[in-house]
Amino acid sequence: MALKLYDLAGADPQRRFSPYCWRTRLALAHKGLAVETIPWRFTEKDAIATTGPGRVPVLVDGERWVFDSWSIATYLEEAYPDRPSLFGSTSAIATARFINAWADHLTPLLAPLLAADICAHVDEKDRAYFRQSREARFGPLEAAAAGRETKIAVFQQRLEPMRVLLAGQPYLSGDAPAYADYIVFGVFQWARCISRFRLLADDDPVVSWRARLLAAFDGLPAKAVGYPV
Amino acid sequence: MALKLYDLAGADPQRRFSPYCWRTRLALAHKGLAVETIPWRFTEKDAIATTGPGRVPVLVDGERWVFDSWSIATYLEEAYPDRPSLFGSTSAIATARFINAWADHLTPLLAPLLAADICAHVDEKDRAYFRQSREARFGPLEAAAAGRETKIAVFQQRLEPMRVLLAGQPYLSGDAPAYADYIVFGVFQWARCISRFRLLADDDPVVSWRARLLAAFDGLPAKAVGYPV
Repeated sequence: MALKLYDLAGADPQRRFSPYCWRTRLALAHKGLAVETIPWRFTEKDAIATTGPGRVPVLVDGERWVFDSWSIATYLEEAYPDRPSLFGSTSAIATARFINAWADHLTPLLAPLLAADICAHVDEKDRAYFRQSREARFGPLEAAAAGRETKIAVFQQRLEPMRVLLAGQPYLSGDAPAYADYIVFGVFQWARCISRFRLLADDDPVVSWRARLLAAFDGLPAKAVGYPV
Repeated sequence: MALKLYDLAGADPQRRFSPYCWRTRLALAHKGLAVETIPWRFTEKDAIATTGPGRVPVLVDGERWVFDSWSIATYLEEAYPDRPSLFGSTSAIATARFINAWADHLTPLLAPLLAADICAHVDEKDRAYFRQSREARFGPLEAAAAGRETKIAVFQQRLEPMRVLLAGQPYLSGDAPAYADYIVFGVFQWARCISRFRLLADDDPVVSWRARLLAAFDGLPAKAVGYPV
């Protein structure tokens, strides 16, 4: 039985824009596991009530429901040990977990800058929920995005540890991509899928890393509905 | 021939307060390698002119001079492969490198808050150099430290990825401490060696991790000249 993934979608069901779901999509591709993705909208809490707090990704593997991108990654590693490892070694899991937590603090830096764009792409039935919940956090969405060309400097500065790593190797995980890369790439793919806003300057060394990830798995991320970066 | 380490010292030659030298001290202890530490002051550039840009740590292993805490860690790993590994695996080196770069961005958050305390502890001959070079960055040192009980919140917030990891394991490296731990612990040990200022709230989960590291290697860090935390 094929794996199933509840995957955040917009008004266009092919627009998949959750940074966390993208981590899982690439983890599944890395493992070479086929998956049926089910477009899911913010307000469809009932569909995934079996597990978690009503957020995606949710993976369904036979009888097993798994919530949260990190839990899914470690689940896949344990359940499919004969497939390529997402981490490389047990000790690398700990540090990948660190990068996961670090990347989870990148998302809030971008969220106010992207929320108006996301709102324009969510399904009609999600729109009121999305605007209301995000405006409670960020204030009016259009105002939150104003001046984002300048505000993005904070996000760009926070990427410095990546640049240190990428000065010596093509991927965060070393010579080949693995889960540590997918974690951070999910953040970029999220932005690319719902916004034309450019996160990186052309000469940023992170750009070529992102290009390598966009081309991974026969271009799975590059082919996804979104905007050029 | 014993290894030698040029180690930043204060007016009291036993006060060793460089966060980067502490990384190396613990890396050597982890490897079970004896070392002769040579107290070094900021203005003694000539003594280490053989290597690097006039900063410590500098390790001397026979004919070999190695500068920079990260380069020393990877040197030790290669030169002493039969000793306990600092990283655990090749793939874990990449992610430890990430934590290294992340921790290097913690230090500047504390530097202005600690510079007046450091100035009070440096050797007499370093004092003018230290005050002048730091005031060029931070402005008057006493003003930079003013209100630090409030300003420390930025540093504390930045530790969040550590707390995520430490919720599930006692050390950043897993069940036992390794170089990823020493990297970050060096930042705390730096502060402890030259300041009474408290970096963490009592109920912060990072406190017990720090306590475990202070007790490591027969209490090497806890016994170092410094202040209670």
